[in-house]
Amino acid sequence: MYYGVSYYPEHKTKAELEHDIRLIKESGINTVRMGEFAWNRFEPNEGEFHFEWLDLVIENLGMDGIKTIICTPTACPPAWLVEKHPDILYMDNRGVRRPFGGRRHYCYNNKSFRKYSALITEKIGEHYGGNPYVAGFQIDNELAQEGTGRCVCPTCSEKFRNWLKNKYKNIENFNRRSGAVFWSQECNDFSQINPPVNTIEVGAQQQIHAFYENPTVRLDFERFSSDSLIEFQNLQTKILKKYTKYPVTTNATGIATNSIDYYKSTKELDCYGFDYYPGLRDTAVDSFPYAFARGIKAGKPFWVMEFMSGGGHRLGGSGRLQPNPGALKQAVIQSFAHGAQMMLHFQFRTFPIGAEQLNYAIVDADGVPRRRYYEMKETAEVLRKIEPIISNSKFVNEVAICLDYDTHWALRIKPVNDSSFYYFDYCRKIYQSLSEVGVNSDVISYDQDFDQYKIMILPTGFVLSLEMREKLKNYVSHGGILLGTFLTSVKNIDNVGYVGSLPSGLSDLFGTTVEEVEPVFENNHNHLKIEEGDCSITTTDEIWSEILSDDSELAGKYLTDYKKDKGVIARNSFGKGMAYYIGTDFCKEDLKTFLLNICKNNGIFIHELSGNDKVEVVRRRYEGKDVYFIFNFNSEETEIHVSGMFIDCLSGKVLKGKHKIDRNGYLIAMKSV
Amino acid sequence: MYYGVSYYPEHKTKAELEHDIRLIKESGINTVRMGEFAWNRFEPNEGEFHFEWLDLVIENLGMDGIKTIICTPTACPPAWLVEKHPDILYMDNRGVRRPFGGRRHYCYNNKSFRKYSALITEKIGEHYGGNPYVAGFQIDNELAQEGTGRCVCPTCSEKFRNWLKNKYKNIENFNRRSGAVFWSQECNDFSQINPPVNTIEVGAQQQIHAFYENPTVRLDFERFSSDSLIEFQNLQTKILKKYTKYPVTTNATGIATNSIDYYKSTKELDCYGFDYYPGLRDTAVDSFPYAFARGIKAGKPFWVMEFMSGGGHRLGGSGRLQPNPGALKQAVIQSFAHGAQMMLHFQFRTFPIGAEQLNYAIVDADGVPRRRYYEMKETAEVLRKIEPIISNSKFVNEVAICLDYDTHWALRIKPVNDSSFYYFDYCRKIYQSLSEVGVNSDVISYDQDFDQYKIMILPTGFVLSLEMREKLKNYVSHGGILLGTFLTSVKNIDNVGYVGSLPSGLSDLFGTTVEEVEPVFENNHNHLKIEEGDCSITTTDEIWSEILSDDSELAGKYLTDYKKDKGVIARNSFGKGMAYYIGTDFCKEDLKTFLLNICKNNGIFIHELSGNDKVEVVRRRYEGKDVYFIFNFNSEETEIHVSGMFIDCLSGKVLKGKHKIDRNGYLIAMKSV
Amino acid sequence: MYYGVSYYPEHKTKAELEHDIRLIKESGINTVRMGEFAWNRFEPNEGEFHFEWLDLVIENLGMDGIKTIICTPTACPPAWLVEKHPDILYMDNRGVRRPFGGRRHYCYNNKSFRKYSALITEKIGEHYGGNPYVAGFQIDNELAQEGTGRCVCPTCSEKFRNWLKNKYKNIENFNRRSGAVFWSQECNDFSQINPPVNTIEVGAQQQIHAFYENPTVRLDFERFSSDSLIEFQNLQTKILKKYTKYPVTTNATGIATNSIDYYKSTKELDCYGFDYYPGLRDTAVDSFPYAFARGIKAGKPFWVMEFMSGGGHRLGGSGRLQPNPGALKQAVIQSFAHGAQMMLHFQFRTFPIGAEQLNYAIVDADGVPRRRYYEMKETAEVLRKIEPIISNSKFVNEVAICLDYDTHWALRIKPVNDSSFYYFDYCRKIYQSLSEVGVNSDVISYDQDFDQYKIMILPTGFVLSLEMREKLKNYVSHGGILLGTFLTSVKNIDNVGYVGSLPSGLSDLFGTTVEEVEPVFENNHNHLKIEEGDCSITTTDEIWSEILSDDSELAGKYLTDYKKDKGVIARNSFGKGMAYYIGTDFCKEDLKTFLLNICKNNGIFIHELSGNDKVEVVRRRYEGKDVYFIFNFNSEETEIHVSGMFIDCLSGKVLKGKHKIDRNGYLIAMKSV
Repeated sequence: MYYGVSYYPEHKTKAELEHDIRLIKESGINTVRMGEFAWNRFEPNEGEFHFEWLDLVIENLGMDGIKTIICTPTACPPAWLVEKHPDILYMDNRGVRRPFGGRRHYCYNNKSFRKYSALITEKIGEHYGGNPYVAGFQIDNELAQEGTGRCVCPTCSEKFRNWLKNKYKNIENFNRRSGAVFWSQECNDFSQINPPVNTIEVGAQQQIHAFYENPTVRLDFERFSSDSLIEFQNLQTKILKKYTKYPVTTNATGIATNSIDYYKSTKELDCYGFDYYPGLRDTAVDSFPYAFARGIKAGKPFWVMEFMSGGGHRLGGSGRLQPNPGALKQAVIQSFAHGAQMMLHFQFRTFPIGAEQLNYAIVDADGVPRRRYYEMKETAEVLRKIEPIISNSKFVNEVAICLDYDTHWALRIKPVNDSSFYYFDYCRKIYQSLSEVGVNSDVISYDQDFDQYKIMILPTGFVLSLEMREKLKNYVSHGGILLGTFLTSVKNIDNVGYVGSLPSGLSDLFGTTVEEVEPVFENNHNHLKIEEGDCSITTTDEIWSEILSDDSELAGKYLTDYKKDKGVIARNSFGKGMAYYIGTDFCKEDLKTFLLNICKNNGIFIHELSGNDKVEVVRRRYEGKDVYFIFNFNSEETEIHVSGMFIDCLSGKVLKGKHKIDRNGYLIAMKSV
Repeated sequence: MYYGVSYYPEHKTKAELEHDIRLIKESGINTVRMGEFAWNRFEPNEGEFHFEWLDLVIENLGMDGIKTIICTPTACPPAWLVEKHPDILYMDNRGVRRPFGGRRHYCYNNKSFRKYSALITEKIGEHYGGNPYVAGFQIDNELAQEGTGRCVCPTCSEKFRNWLKNKYKNIENFNRRSGAVFWSQECNDFSQINPPVNTIEVGAQQQIHAFYENPTVRLDFERFSSDSLIEFQNLQTKILKKYTKYPVTTNATGIATNSIDYYKSTKELDCYGFDYYPGLRDTAVDSFPYAFARGIKAGKPFWVMEFMSGGGHRLGGSGRLQPNPGALKQAVIQSFAHGAQMMLHFQFRTFPIGAEQLNYAIVDADGVPRRRYYEMKETAEVLRKIEPIISNSKFVNEVAICLDYDTHWALRIKPVNDSSFYYFDYCRKIYQSLSEVGVNSDVISYDQDFDQYKIMILPTGFVLSLEMREKLKNYVSHGGILLGTFLTSVKNIDNVGYVGSLPSGLSDLFGTTVEEVEPVFENNHNHLKIEEGDCSITTTDEIWSEILSDDSELAGKYLTDYKKDKGVIARNSFGKGMAYYIGTDFCKEDLKTFLLNICKNNGIFIHELSGNDKVEVVRRRYEGKDVYFIFNFNSEETEIHVSGMFIDCLSGKVLKGKHKIDRNGYLIAMKSV
Repeated sequence: MYYGVSYYPEHKTKAELEHDIRLIKESGINTVRMGEFAWNRFEPNEGEFHFEWLDLVIENLGMDGIKTIICTPTACPPAWLVEKHPDILYMDNRGVRRPFGGRRHYCYNNKSFRKYSALITEKIGEHYGGNPYVAGFQIDNELAQEGTGRCVCPTCSEKFRNWLKNKYKNIENFNRRSGAVFWSQECNDFSQINPPVNTIEVGAQQQIHAFYENPTVRLDFERFSSDSLIEFQNLQTKILKKYTKYPVTTNATGIATNSIDYYKSTKELDCYGFDYYPGLRDTAVDSFPYAFARGIKAGKPFWVMEFMSGGGHRLGGSGRLQPNPGALKQAVIQSFAHGAQMMLHFQFRTFPIGAEQLNYAIVDADGVPRRRYYEMKETAEVLRKIEPIISNSKFVNEVAICLDYDTHWALRIKPVNDSSFYYFDYCRKIYQSLSEVGVNSDVISYDQDFDQYKIMILPTGFVLSLEMREKLKNYVSHGGILLGTFLTSVKNIDNVGYVGSLPSGLSDLFGTTVEEVEPVFENNHNHLKIEEGDCSITTTDEIWSEILSDDSELAGKYLTDYKKDKGVIARNSFGKGMAYYIGTDFCKEDLKTFLLNICKNNGIFIHELSGNDKVEVVRRRYEGKDVYFIFNFNSEETEIHVSGMFIDCLSGKVLKGKHKIDRNGYLIAMKSV
């Protein structure tokens, strides 16, 4: 278990460095991440490499048991490199090159940039690959962040054409599969295809108003750009692995940015690493990103490379709130409870310089340790105590939610009820609903093993391959319970609509056909009644509404307007299992009731610790016993009720019946059986 | 009477085509529009023309009595053409070329593009001009739509300079008439003039903040661009007319876009065609666009080339609601009641491919006929029954509203109380107010004949030529009743302010002078009292407020603040007629009362069918009798009260006293005299 | 005292000119500003100069005692100049040249432009420098307005690099002082540095999303651009002063735009001139811009070159309201009461032409004098009466607020609680709070003399030089009372954070150290209690919250949450004086109570005229007596209560006890002692 901070020795005077290292050592943390923006210190002139400045720090820390994560510094190509090769600069969708002066101003496909990146990586691998004080490597920094993941420079454009050629083999295939006949967009040659000017990149320069491009080309460009970034990343992975046995990863930006398919990008990495900046002031820390992270490599522990540390200023804009006293500790333990193996605060000490000057950190710019520092110290202490439980307990979830980047991208390209519906938020809503009714779930990709789960949830499987159709049918026919929701199996992997009735190719599985679809806006809600098992709910459709065919076995019907008595939820026995199709969304409270009922009916474990919505419970198994990690996110002390007998893992006390948890408090309780 | 759909045989496999054609035939519609985006199928390589793929479909449909509207495909120049002549690409106001990859990526003034457009049009005219199964031709598709009507490429810039030269003859005239002395903008030569970077084009790239250009040059550029688009269109008109006797038109985007002066653009066309996408879910379908359409060619029937068909997805964004059951039928009949001769749904079957994939259509992507299809079928049946009445009844309106593109453009260039005041919405408000009090009105251009109307309404005649002043005076002096409203005769045709007191040159006509003007914002409303005939209303000024001179004969005075007792509405006998000047706007209810009073006092026919605001009544004359088309746009059944005796044209039943109309229902009733 | 209008004889026909001049003369005003956009009339072709058209007007007016302010016309380089030297065009942050067609389309650093500007200025100076009818000169027009103050053309880029070189001497210094090590931004040579793409310029083309540049380079670019504009301005100042003894100034855009440091830019000018367009309809005219203006040259009278005149249309957008009857007169007298020496309405007569056509003016486009004209005439009459008092009375304020452009720019570059906190608004709030409790204050720069004031207020001294630290300590140690507020002494003059504890280097002065900082958003307010002298207030923190060290002498503590009992306001005796540090903002009412208490305790004069918040009182000293200028900004008549005896300076009546002032009325009262 790694706990620590980011640190930037290259910014410091000798005296500051000594001061900081002393504080770091006294804090009890065991990991420091360094080097990710220091290219110009590593290589101040072309071919002239310097590591001594960092070696000293690593050794100094290492002698006291503090390990270093070494980063390759390729997020910040220095001035001399830009000057020599101005074509390495990133080009935005309006053809403007991002200038030297910020960060991430490079094209990941540019050959010169790749050459220089490979060289600095080679040198770093060579130099640090076997250093006993090093714990692992981070490649680059937040790839694609800040709108740098959809370069359209000539290199990228040309490479994209080749990518298409590689996928479609010949132009006739491209024309046919992409539906290029629409608007006479058929090409005689791949050379006639442009990268789209409208991408999902948030940082892209103003998109062209009302300029609608081919959705197949658009999805392909998202994939191509993601693939290119992965290829760039893995050039470094490969080099580092020549020199080291330590884990190699990068810091993803999680489900916040999503310009890269992390399921693909993490394949050659040793673990999934990501950055997470939740608020820590009177708010629950959302654990969906952790579930997502845990699912990337099928349950392997993940690394949090950067984590929120404090209040004050911010990169731009309005500043950050300070954490509540206790919130930082609580959040760190929560992270480990959900499967983290590393958790590093960004960052140790506030920068006085540069674009991130005055931002949040553990220690203020003046270097005086204050409450955040002391809380980090206490946290390190607690972590040492709970390490055995964390490291040796495993997740035993019976429900999984599966999600997919093709669907995410396709829904950004062709939105559904924009801006009310955001795919990952919808998945998050299902995850949280389960959690709040006492069911921990996993979040996995379409590629992972479904059979270990009793219930599989497929939220809006918009883009669905023929293989995935078969996989779902297999899963259910062997006894699985599947919940699919509206707009499932609408498009094929080319982002082209299926011409079969919806859910296309899955009517046998779900026992229903979609007769009519429409978005749900403010003025066209309909009431509906869900009848399933013991559960009878009257609720209201949201986001999107589908009418299911009369031949369906209905678990939900509309109650109002011309949809009255039409189906909205269908249920179908299929092989040994059961498949539900849910043709709309509804409010969280009703979704919780519905999901709880399904879980109960199917023998899913529901934990016995009832708190309230703002008390999160993570259940894991440790040496054959249930261990519960319980977090109070209420803004005041709360009371939980335990059924059965538990042991408080930290105090060793026995817990029975009612038990109080402080504001920002937590409890680690082992079932006493 | 033509009723049908758009269809895209070029997208289809043979099996799909057979399936669709069978459904089309079974539906009872009689018209299909085809070909508007199929340039690459018509001419897959330069000079290689293919029509056989379409001929078969036309013949197949035609044999069963279904006519085809053939479109020229110039909205989508294919890849080979763009590759050979990249200078045909549209250039936006920031100098960026619109790339191949969407549609309408062309400059309408570019010589190469015009040459290729002429050739494909020639071939189409030659091939289909005499085809017995063809009913007419559509040129291009939605000219200027999606921000493609204000190209500033070198060709356009040069042509604009010549346009100015042609208008102003010499640079001294230009300097003088455009007020170029302001900000030292006088030019020594036309070559020094740039197209403005700020245009009214909604799709234009971000306009330069706080960069204020000469309003004369700006209005001239709007006119020049409109003229250029018309010139481009009429190159095709001329060619097609060499080969065909069938009607030739295009599909305008109506008062939604307004980058083209449709009064000018329709002159050489056989009728006005336009596209209309109203909501059909629990909402009244606005008939102002129909009145506008009917007025384009002085009462001639118009064609609706594309009309709303269903719900689901959309070109971009949030999706579309499904029509209420019955709403589609109701809307189609309403359209014919208002003067349509053709009404084609966009489109027959949902696209699985391309930028418009998954959009609304009559039949879903899976090709299964459902309620919208069956409703279209019923509608076709009804239309066959009412065709004699529709085709042989005429409009006999006594009130007209006149509107003008120069005023519209001038008000976009120099807005008045932006964003509360939108000229066409203001005209629409007057139209609807009249309709709701039982008075059908016409909407006409400044160029049309005023003398056939008892009452003429001139809403904000902002840009007013000297000729129009005379026309208005003539109209009133011969007995007409004129209602002019605030900001009338403010500017001359060069978009330069008149230096006479307002309403400039019309004080004799209106018997008043404007003493003071200002916008009306949230905090400076004043109450006012209208006293005219039997009508006494206390209301509140809106949008804009003018104080009229004390020597006016007042029909309305302010009641409050420093404007107390000052005039706001003036009335003046002029020759045999009467002119009203209304120096502000007011709420719709009070506007209705005021207009009803004026209509009553002047013997305007007010229909005897009273419903409520959401029941629309269209009165026409058929064989000497009044025939009423009545539409219930309430969200429930409604009851109307008829005075006198009527015959229900569809059932033949006699109607007297109270009568119920279903939700989304309609009634066609003939006065039984 | 100068009172008058802007006028544009170059727009007029001979008849219009005669008409206008007659009205101007009859109005009683004594000043007209002319020529600021007339370059092409002064020099219609290169090297061909014409002044006769203006000479006639100047002489005609001058013969009747009306003086002219002559403007250099460099805001509008004519077409022939742009055509010959297209490189003079302004380049925005995306590299787009602003075209000819608006105004201010020039680069102030361009050599060709400077040459032509110098020549036309030379000719104007030569021609008008000694003209007896001229009262002064205005250089250019609203420098930097409308987004024209941050040009990044090659000339500017190169010059910026030289500016940096000049400041930092060598690249090592630059790298070190700018913190360029952050994100590997160290340069090997100044040639590698770019002007930032993100500036504070409002008119800049869309800034690059999430592209964060070095804050030192950003602040330096703001200074460089301001310096460049000043340099451009002073090329003209120097030329004009060769030829004239009359005052030379320009028209700043005041604290509205702030792209130029007016403390620097006014140094070589004879007075500070600025444009001011407050609303005049049922609203108080904010006098903070006047206090700011008076402070620019340490109390010297200022000129208002353009002032609001009427309602109707506007440069773009929504139009302007008319002034209340009386509001124009009231506003003009208020301006003189606050230290104006000149006040010119923009403008005499509404333009029918150009980008500003139909905008507000004293006389409408039709040339008919109406109420605004007659009110101007009455105002001129009043001004003649009060001139002796205005010209001979002085300000005797004991409190000053000091502000600074470095802090303003630094807070735009790295905002604090954006968009709630705007530095100048915060300064304004303090100024108004003082005014509303009866204390007139001065607004001065950091460079001015502090010792003449009993109380000095330093609102958020964010960027604070070492010299300023010393100055503050000297001020207090010699007996001054200092109020510093949150985020003081955070950054050095390189826009780099201090590494000392906050307020950096001033803990001895304020007797406190900042322990923790954070913004205050909607959900993290805390209550706090202020105890200072007789004043005990319970209030709520706003905008930003700091926790002060426990060793402080506290005048305010938090009451709630984890901040309970922590300090927020500290008080410290330092030498002979006292320093307060206020670690948050609070609502205006509580700020008023707090400030009033401090003023009372320190013997500050508080005037005896109590009205209400919307009655403004300006106190000056005239011949040893207090004279009060009192303005009623309520929307109705108000009653004031005077203690003691006063004489109404206009009527000569004695005032005692209660006294009524009309809506939009004013009173000039001399203390009768």
